[in-house]
Amino acid sequence: MKKSPYQDSFYFYAMEDLQKQVGFIHEIDKLKYIERMTCLFNSERRENDAEHSWHLCMMALVLAPHANEKIDLLKVLKMLLIHDIVEIDAGDTFLFDTNKDHNNTQEELKAAKRIFGMLPEEQADELTTLWLEFEKAESAEAKFAKAVDRLAPMMQNATNNGGTWAQHNVPYETVIEKKKRIKEGSDELWDYAKKLVDSHYQKG
Amino acid sequence: MKKSPYQDSFYFYAMEDLQKQVGFIHEIDKLKYIERMTCLFNSERRENDAEHSWHLCMMALVLAPHANEKIDLLKVLKMLLIHDIVEIDAGDTFLFDTNKDHNNTQEELKAAKRIFGMLPEEQADELTTLWLEFEKAESAEAKFAKAVDRLAPMMQNATNNGGTWAQHNVPYETVIEKKKRIKEGSDELWDYAKKLVDSHYQKG
Repeated sequence: MKKSPYQDSFYFYAMEDLQKQVGFIHEIDKLKYIERMTCLFNSERRENDAEHSWHLCMMALVLAPHANEKIDLLKVLKMLLIHDIVEIDAGDTFLFDTNKDHNNTQEELKAAKRIFGMLPEEQADELTTLWLEFEKAESAEAKFAKAVDRLAPMMQNATNNGGTWAQHNVPYETVIEKKKRIKEGSDELWDYAKKLVDSHYQKG
Repeated sequence: MKKSPYQDSFYFYAMEDLQKQVGFIHEIDKLKYIERMTCLFNSERRENDAEHSWHLCMMALVLAPHANEKIDLLKVLKMLLIHDIVEIDAGDTFLFDTNKDHNNTQEELKAAKRIFGMLPEEQADELTTLWLEFEKAESAEAKFAKAVDRLAPMMQNATNNGGTWAQHNVPYETVIEKKKRIKEGSDELWDYAKKLVDSHYQKG
C-alpha cells in the first residue's frame, strides 16, 4: 500500500514550516506600502521600501567589484533584501531627521523579532542575526551594504534638483558628515558620491 | 609627491566601469513603472515589476529548503533580481494572454542585449547568460526560480477572490496546465499551489 505523504514525518514538518513561511510572505507584502522620503530618478513619485530594496540589490550586484574588502555577495544581498522589513512596524526614519534618531534600535529590534519570528526558528534566527550585523555596520558585508544604501538616495537626489537635500535645506557639511561612512565600504564609491554632493552644492 | 588616483591605471579603469554601472543603475529604475496584471495581497493596487522582483527574492530565500534539487541560492537570487528587466523594453506579457506568447524570446533577447549591454563587458555577459538560463528553465536554479515566479501570483490571486483568474475567466484546467511546472522546481510548493487553485475553483 502506498503511504500517504502526510504519514511521512519529514513531509509533515516541511508542511508545518511552509505554513509559517507563507504567513511571513504575506506579512512582508506591507513593505510595498511604506514610502521613503526620496523620489525615483527624475521623478516626483516617492519610492517605496520594496522597490528600494530591489534596486539596492541590483546596485550591490553590479558595484561589488568596488568594495574595499572581499565580500560574500550572497550575504550582502540577503542583508539588503531584509534591511528595511522592520519598517513595517517601526516606519521609515529620515536620515536627516533632527528629532528622531535614525538608528531607533529598540523599536526596530522589537519589529525584527516579531516579523522574522513568524518564520521557522532556524530561519528567524538567521535573519535576525543578519539584520543585527547590518545595523552594526562592522563586517565587510555590512559596511558594503550600508555604503550602497547610503549612495542610492544621493544618486536619486542628484537627478531631482537636490531632492531631499534641497527640500529640507540640509547643509553641505551635514550631508558629507552623514554620508562619508560610504568610504568604509568603498573608497571608489565615496569618491563618486562626494562628487555628486559637491556638484549639487556648487550649483547652489 | 603623492600620485593622483587618476594616474593609477587600475583606478582609471575602475572609474570607467563605474560610469557604465551608474548608467545601468539609472536605466533599470524604469522597472518601477512597469505594472503587472496581478495585484498586491488583499488589494486592488497592481504590483510593479521592481516590487515583484524583491518579493520573489524573499520567497526564494525562505522557501529554498523546499527545492527538489540542491540549489545555489546566490544564483537563484541573481536570476530573480534580473528576470523582468527585459520588460523595460518588451513590456509585461500576461501568462494567460491568448494572443501573445508569454515567451516572446526575440523581443526580450533584444532588450536583454541592450540593457545588460550597458554594463562593462564581463558583467553584461554574466547577466545575459543568467537571464537565458532562467528563460530555458532547465538548471536546478532556473527551475526553482521559475517555480517561485509562478507561485507568487497564485498566492496573490487567492487573497483577491481569484484575482486575474476570475477577471479573465481562466478555466481551472488552464491554470493547472500553466502552473504545474512549479512541480519541476518543488513538489512541496506544487502541492501547496494546487490546493490554492482547487480551493478557489471549489468556491466557484
